[in-house]
Amino acid sequence: MNPPRKEKEWLSFIDKNFSSYGALVGNGDDGAVLKKASWCITTDLLMEGVDFEKGWAPAEAVGWKSLAVNLSDLAAMGSKPLFFLVSLAIPSRYKDIEIENLLLGIKALAAKEKVSLLGGDLSRSPDKLVISITALGSQGEKPLLRGKARVGDSIYVSSHLGAPKEALKMFKKGTRLKVFPLKNGPAKENALADRFFRPPSQSKLGQILAEKRIASSAIDISDGLLLDLSRLLAKCRLGAVLQGEAIPRAKNAEGAFVSVEDAVTSGEEQTLLITVPKSKERLLENIKAKLFKIGFVSPKSGIWMERKGKISKLEAAGFDHFE
Amino acid sequence: MNPPRKEKEWLSFIDKNFSSYGALVGNGDDGAVLKKASWCITTDLLMEGVDFEKGWAPAEAVGWKSLAVNLSDLAAMGSKPLFFLVSLAIPSRYKDIEIENLLLGIKALAAKEKVSLLGGDLSRSPDKLVISITALGSQGEKPLLRGKARVGDSIYVSSHLGAPKEALKMFKKGTRLKVFPLKNGPAKENALADRFFRPPSQSKLGQILAEKRIASSAIDISDGLLLDLSRLLAKCRLGAVLQGEAIPRAKNAEGAFVSVEDAVTSGEEQTLLITVPKSKERLLENIKAKLFKIGFVSPKSGIWMERKGKISKLEAAGFDHFE
Repeated sequence: MNPPRKEKEWLSFIDKNFSSYGALVGNGDDGAVLKKASWCITTDLLMEGVDFEKGWAPAEAVGWKSLAVNLSDLAAMGSKPLFFLVSLAIPSRYKDIEIENLLLGIKALAAKEKVSLLGGDLSRSPDKLVISITALGSQGEKPLLRGKARVGDSIYVSSHLGAPKEALKMFKKGTRLKVFPLKNGPAKENALADRFFRPPSQSKLGQILAEKRIASSAIDISDGLLLDLSRLLAKCRLGAVLQGEAIPRAKNAEGAFVSVEDAVTSGEEQTLLITVPKSKERLLENIKAKLFKIGFVSPKSGIWMERKGKISKLEAAGFDHFE
Repeated sequence: MNPPRKEKEWLSFIDKNFSSYGALVGNGDDGAVLKKASWCITTDLLMEGVDFEKGWAPAEAVGWKSLAVNLSDLAAMGSKPLFFLVSLAIPSRYKDIEIENLLLGIKALAAKEKVSLLGGDLSRSPDKLVISITALGSQGEKPLLRGKARVGDSIYVSSHLGAPKEALKMFKKGTRLKVFPLKNGPAKENALADRFFRPPSQSKLGQILAEKRIASSAIDISDGLLLDLSRLLAKCRLGAVLQGEAIPRAKNAEGAFVSVEDAVTSGEEQTLLITVPKSKERLLENIKAKLFKIGFVSPKSGIWMERKGKISKLEAAGFDHFE
């Protein structure tokens, strides 16, 4: 058995597995140097014990997700992902093979999305695993922003909602994702758990929505539709009316649709929530991605839901890290 | 007494205290958007229980240091710092005022160095405080790189060495930095502890060394002179001969010079280690910063030290996070 890897050995493992293609100076110096371009930059941190538990899934799944949540933010800006940096704080109870698999999970998504590593930081952690990633993408002239919706715009989401919340319930009950095949796509054994760690890529959709100027505003659903919709509309001080029946609901492990309540408060969806002006809606027909119209932007602030003929105001509930 | 702040309240506190001056789209969206330029990017993570303990100093000091270690990396590339992103994972045992002070510590250094916030991520932590910062700087045509030293180049460091190691010893014995004045500079009460959290800015020095093409290579000393010198020289497969008597040594709390051994293995110095071709050394005379010549680059690999007439090979010892 080999002795546990030292920092230097981890660095050379990372060097072998990741390239900084496209950068003037890549990984391995004090910083990376990028060529001239317009850049979008975002950062997201995954913390063991908060965002995931060690036993829920193979380390590859955690690695994949740690990059996916960042790429989702770039997609919500309409930016094309190109680079990332990764910092790891590693507890000694993790085996080298687990950290290696975590890095290989990151690498698998990086290869799929053609993003390359620019640098990072390795540190010990006293107790919990931390993965902090910063991602950069090239940015066209018109980024997809929050706060640019107008009254009457239609509201769309880019996937069924509720699967990640359902997966979380299952993890808490003891369900484990045992297989996470990097090459052959989602494990059939447990599609919900796989969906939690491997959200569908929104990159192409985000780029098309920005390039063709279809969406007036966009955000990725990370803390639940209601909370993220209220964030999307907060800057323009508008509200929304949602059609309860139109909310696309995921199915739970038994094959039944999740409740509307669970669908609109399910976080970590990492799919897009966008507003589209009426005049642009016909352009959606040429887009391959599935988009579900769920309501429209209203002049009255707050989020309202029409359901079975009744309309009622909803609390912008969702995941607040500090509640 | 106010109830503890929620995530939304933290975000608005951050919005009030930090601006994204100079970015096309700043903090507050899924990502930030930067104008065209050449960029240098780096990231560094501080972990409670590894890089610092809660009781060692006021939270402002930890905040200051978390940004300083990143700016030090930019300086070692000769890059002008402009932007940063900050992710915090916060345990519930931290009081709001402590996190506020931590952010104000970051803000104080950001204001001093004129760098502005582009974004970040807020998360709960089960146990330890984590601060992960990514910093960006504009980059001229000739970044300061590792691996570009040539045989015969002189080796310089930009400060006395050993104070951070001395401070760590003191912290472990129970010394606490009680005052960390953001406005009036270092606390006189405990200069060593202050030096640990507030390394001197190397930004201007790094930029001059790059712009005037004085240094052939550069690195910031974060894990000890010996280890970082071996990293600096590793890519060009050269060695170094150091003059033991020329190593500039900091003083300990009793006013005595630290040992050469401590000076060359002291990490977290966040000062520059550079190589300068003989033909460029006269250009150093016009630089205000103090630079200490400690040896020269040799064709024989390994680090050697001449001391009291004897020359001996040194182990490239220093701080490895995983040893």
